[in-house]
Amino acid sequence: NDVLSQLVAAIGSGGVEVVDLTQTLSEATPVLVLPPEFGQCAPFSREVISRYDERGVAWYWSNFTVCEHTGTHFDAPVHWVSGKDLPANSVDTIAPADFVASAVVIDCSAEAETDPDFLLDRSHIEAWEAAHGPVPARSWVLFRTDWSKRDVDAYTNRREDGAHTPGPNAEAVRYLIEERDIIGFGVETIGTDAGQAHLLTPPYPAHTLLHGAGRYGLQCLENLDRLPATGTVLVAAPLKIENGSGSPLRVLALVAK
Amino acid sequence: NDVLSQLVAAIGSGGVEVVDLTQTLSEATPVLVLPPEFGQCAPFSREVISRYDERGVAWYWSNFTVCEHTGTHFDAPVHWVSGKDLPANSVDTIAPADFVASAVVIDCSAEAETDPDFLLDRSHIEAWEAAHGPVPARSWVLFRTDWSKRDVDAYTNRREDGAHTPGPNAEAVRYLIEERDIIGFGVETIGTDAGQAHLLTPPYPAHTLLHGAGRYGLQCLENLDRLPATGTVLVAAPLKIENGSGSPLRVLALVAK
Ligand SMILES: Nc1ccccc1C(=O)C(=O)O
Ligand SMILES: Nc1ccccc1C(=O)C(=O)O
Repeated sequence: NDVLSQLVAAIGSGGVEVVDLTQTLSEATPVLVLPPEFGQCAPFSREVISRYDERGVAWYWSNFTVCEHTGTHFDAPVHWVSGKDLPANSVDTIAPADFVASAVVIDCSAEAETDPDFLLDRSHIEAWEAAHGPVPARSWVLFRTDWSKRDVDAYTNRREDGAHTPGPNAEAVRYLIEERDIIGFGVETIGTDAGQAHLLTPPYPAHTLLHGAGRYGLQCLENLDRLPATGTVLVAAPLKIENGSGSPLRVLALVAK
Repeated sequence: NDVLSQLVAAIGSGGVEVVDLTQTLSEATPVLVLPPEFGQCAPFSREVISRYDERGVAWYWSNFTVCEHTGTHFDAPVHWVSGKDLPANSVDTIAPADFVASAVVIDCSAEAETDPDFLLDRSHIEAWEAAHGPVPARSWVLFRTDWSKRDVDAYTNRREDGAHTPGPNAEAVRYLIEERDIIGFGVETIGTDAGQAHLLTPPYPAHTLLHGAGRYGLQCLENLDRLPATGTVLVAAPLKIENGSGSPLRVLALVAK
């Protein structure tokens, strides 16, 4: 098939670049912190099994513990109560074709720099569309905030009243689902929702509306500043955890040079 | 870019099928068992954090523990002592372009059915090449044995003297690296090496030679019988674990219909 051999040739020649959008997963990877009455997400931890030593003479390997939602990760519809009863709502049952899709990037880095609680509204998307054309159906919308360039304290940006990080409002999410039929919404922050999204209507509009409509989330992305506004192909394939609500994953962007 | 928009269109129309080569990851996923004097690989286990309950009113999620080499997984060069000092030898430092590559399938399911200790030799590869042409440079070689269709006892096939499962011999691996410059070798069994490969020269020739040459391994693949002999594009992107020796991953094959 032409397109497949052309793809491999273009990657080999550099005509298509493979950009890694993934945070390094380590003991230092920041995780979501919820109010103390709720169960908490495990940070990444590991135990070395052997390292070319008496525990394994020629091999190095580790066991590790992690949350389904630690580091760069994928959210499946079953993660949220609104998606609880949908078909194919867990990472092991989603159609594999959904793991390879187009992506657009909406750059709100200037707005998020001056306002950490910046909310993406329908009007911002419409302004983006006036310049770039409509968001294509079955596309990822990637929300660039340059949050991934912050050091860890400014990245989590926690204060007494919780995290202050940007996200979309309900109207923006509804527009992308109902009028643009997006496959999912991807962000640089921890959570597709803003840090203060428990105060919005509905609370957590991205989680509630996306997953209720069978759409996906991607969190803790990097290198969105290396992507064009349109034309990227995103490869985002979560681990096949039985009935999994999400998983850490490697997210790759294929970009024409 | 033409090739990227054509790829998305072909996936949408079914002209390119996305075939999932991944085992479901669960508490039942079989793992490698080494002699008892060595450290052991953890099976998959999990703890539910909340399930739309008082531990998290609107969300379901879990923490999980797993080995870097449990279930369908990727082996990086640093996994083996022969690859210990190579550059870019861990899952977080490998060039992302290596995660998207062509693949060929060598079907030895008939041989493996009659001989569980079947060893792929250079002559089998040469016979395959007489029919299909040379293995392309920077390709994955996928070794089809239909092992993934077996039930769990026949799959691990453990006896008193260890596992009896097929694999390549040293000459086959050397040929693929030195004369064909493959990117890696993928199998349906647990381990790129045969179950009795500790008795070969060198011991574990696939691990020793592949990783010593900076090449990769893929294990516990399924659905190789759904792939053509040539022309597949394989997407195999491990988690970005800092200094990781490998990781469970989702392996996708793009196949022309
Ligand atoms: N916002 C949340 C609230 C509760 C549980 C998880 C989240 C996430 O953002 C997540 O999916 O990482
Ligand atoms: N054969 C082995 C011996 C020791 C450690 C690991 C292995 C694997 O096969 C693996 O990579 O899963």
